[in-house]
Amino acid sequence: MGKMIYLDNAATTKTAPEVVEAMLPYFTEMYGNPSSVYDFAGKSKDAVTKGREQIANVLGAQKEEIYFTAGGSEADNWALKATFEAYKSKGNHIITTKIEHHAILHTCEYLEKERGAKITYLDVDENGVVKLDELEKAITPETILISVMFANNEIGTLQPIKEIGMIAKEHGILFHTDAVQAFGQVPINVDELGIDMLSSSGHKLNGPKGIGFLYIRKGVKIRSFVHGGAQERKRRAGTENVPGIVGFGVAAERAMHSMADRTAKEVLVRDHLISRITSEIPYVKLNGHPKKRLPNNVNVSFQFVEGESMLLMLDSFGICASSGSACTSGSLDPSHVLLAIGLPHEIAHGSLRLTLSEETTMEDADFVVDKLKDIVANLRSMSPLYEDFIKKQNK
Amino acid sequence: MGKMIYLDNAATTKTAPEVVEAMLPYFTEMYGNPSSVYDFAGKSKDAVTKGREQIANVLGAQKEEIYFTAGGSEADNWALKATFEAYKSKGNHIITTKIEHHAILHTCEYLEKERGAKITYLDVDENGVVKLDELEKAITPETILISVMFANNEIGTLQPIKEIGMIAKEHGILFHTDAVQAFGQVPINVDELGIDMLSSSGHKLNGPKGIGFLYIRKGVKIRSFVHGGAQERKRRAGTENVPGIVGFGVAAERAMHSMADRTAKEVLVRDHLISRITSEIPYVKLNGHPKKRLPNNVNVSFQFVEGESMLLMLDSFGICASSGSACTSGSLDPSHVLLAIGLPHEIAHGSLRLTLSEETTMEDADFVVDKLKDIVANLRSMSPLYEDFIKKQNK
Repeated sequence: MGKMIYLDNAATTKTAPEVVEAMLPYFTEMYGNPSSVYDFAGKSKDAVTKGREQIANVLGAQKEEIYFTAGGSEADNWALKATFEAYKSKGNHIITTKIEHHAILHTCEYLEKERGAKITYLDVDENGVVKLDELEKAITPETILISVMFANNEIGTLQPIKEIGMIAKEHGILFHTDAVQAFGQVPINVDELGIDMLSSSGHKLNGPKGIGFLYIRKGVKIRSFVHGGAQERKRRAGTENVPGIVGFGVAAERAMHSMADRTAKEVLVRDHLISRITSEIPYVKLNGHPKKRLPNNVNVSFQFVEGESMLLMLDSFGICASSGSACTSGSLDPSHVLLAIGLPHEIAHGSLRLTLSEETTMEDADFVVDKLKDIVANLRSMSPLYEDFIKKQNK
Repeated sequence: MGKMIYLDNAATTKTAPEVVEAMLPYFTEMYGNPSSVYDFAGKSKDAVTKGREQIANVLGAQKEEIYFTAGGSEADNWALKATFEAYKSKGNHIITTKIEHHAILHTCEYLEKERGAKITYLDVDENGVVKLDELEKAITPETILISVMFANNEIGTLQPIKEIGMIAKEHGILFHTDAVQAFGQVPINVDELGIDMLSSSGHKLNGPKGIGFLYIRKGVKIRSFVHGGAQERKRRAGTENVPGIVGFGVAAERAMHSMADRTAKEVLVRDHLISRITSEIPYVKLNGHPKKRLPNNVNVSFQFVEGESMLLMLDSFGICASSGSACTSGSLDPSHVLLAIGLPHEIAHGSLRLTLSEETTMEDADFVVDKLKDIVANLRSMSPLYEDFIKKQNK
């Protein structure tokens, strides 16, 4: 097999060599526990503080507002469950959307089933954008939290975060956003956007797996999700993942500095992919907002094609892609996101997500489209549904 | 400063070079998301499976019974909270001990305050051993879980885990053990010991920080603590920390293979330390069981000495030690463990924990004792309490 073309950067990214380089000394040299009192452990503590600062800088936050977790899922669980616990005397209502990541949706289901929460799952429009008037209408005196993702992990649609933040603020409701896909990809300033809590994960921006954070604005009175030791200002127990934090810090700084150039380049390749796919392959639909989308996200649905088969055939050419999110791959259900934007089951099943990196070239894009044309034609030639459709067309 | 003598291996350990070596390719080469469907991601999936097998082997468990977490604290939280949720229709009573790690104690407090659990905190004897008759007496028809740590993190005392497992089984109660300090240090077979759930953490046995696991026996019907994606057989959401899992697997295998030789050597150094300290320094007390203790744990209390000052002076000689657990260092409260074994506050405050590694030599031990003698004498010479005491003695 020749060169691999990795187009699944929304699932996970390659850890950047400089990130690994920065982490290494914290495994075998400066391996002390940041909570210990001797000088040697102070180096670990300093490293954690530096990582916290690097991340806070990206968000325009203060370092004391960054709380490290094991990843985005823990951060999402923490934000929702602890907000519910801390504010349930005020109300038990949470507003979210139908297109959230499962770390939000399944946590909401848990809160409904086990803890007596009431959840409103907002519809989105055909581009996957939350309707602000429906959000406003959903607010009740019991509403304690609005949780809307920054950018969708499947279709890449960016939400009107600033407007949502304003609505939340007007009503005195906390606003959490799952920014796992957006952090490091688009500029985020928590003050300007009115964000009270924000989840992120290191491995989505060339940082290591196993590390994430929850930004918690000062004054938000949520407590622990993981109880135990006094780490993270008594809010998240467990020995700090020092190498992970160091790596995440470097990755965040790196992503911030490279953002403008990197995403400008990605947008060119992305739009080239979208343009060629939608013009050269018939019966195809772009999913997600045509403009307000992540710079590296392409999501298309092909009629009369089964997504899994398409992925396997792409894989045979060294192209790594996905049909929906990695977290639910293997599932036979069509994507809840694609259903929410109105796709019928059979079309949702024929979907393809290509998520680029700074390393993706125009040549890669052309290679992928060329192969994709053949694969789609090939799969359709074996589809009885397609045969019927063409017969009818020709009548 | 000369050589550092690191005697805080209960707080955290140096990641073994071969562990880091094994992890490295999974950052920058085989970085795929184990949930993705293409071949490239299969390498990550295989690595996770191998890590699971390596760990299961150490416990005599099946690989499907190992669930990766971010560490010991998450595993403890999961075991307690999810057991409570899954079995609360059967009863709301949990039995634990007064000397557990805070990841257990604070989770229990949370369950009491927020969720309506009833918790019995068992006393321990002067050596820190749970009294089995009191355990039996504490059992009620409402008891759903017994959680007793395998080995104490401060005083090193090993609990009668097999006997506790038998009691739990006789009464049809689940048995969880926090084995964060014991895993890789003492032989553990979950079947022989009747353990239903077991928590562990990678960085305590020369594995990386940020990775742990919860062993869950087949048939134990607990659900998720972190909700979201379908990872870990739908029980723990979040992209797998592949490098962390690989590192933990290698560390576990390594610890198993080296256990006999390593701990035999550690016991010699440990007992040499204990013998010299208790014979050459007056007014000192060994904490924890004299025999049934972790091979690498020394915990002693010096009368008329303030622990923090002792640590700082040891640090000035390059000796890294602790007064209690790392997770609570910085706190001015005396250790709950030392209070539970009957130490008065003022003596608990003068405690020192030295936890060895395979690299600790007899020469290191002698150096530490020599310095310790001076330090204790020095600190006592400045203590008005000691002065009074000596005056009274001389009357």
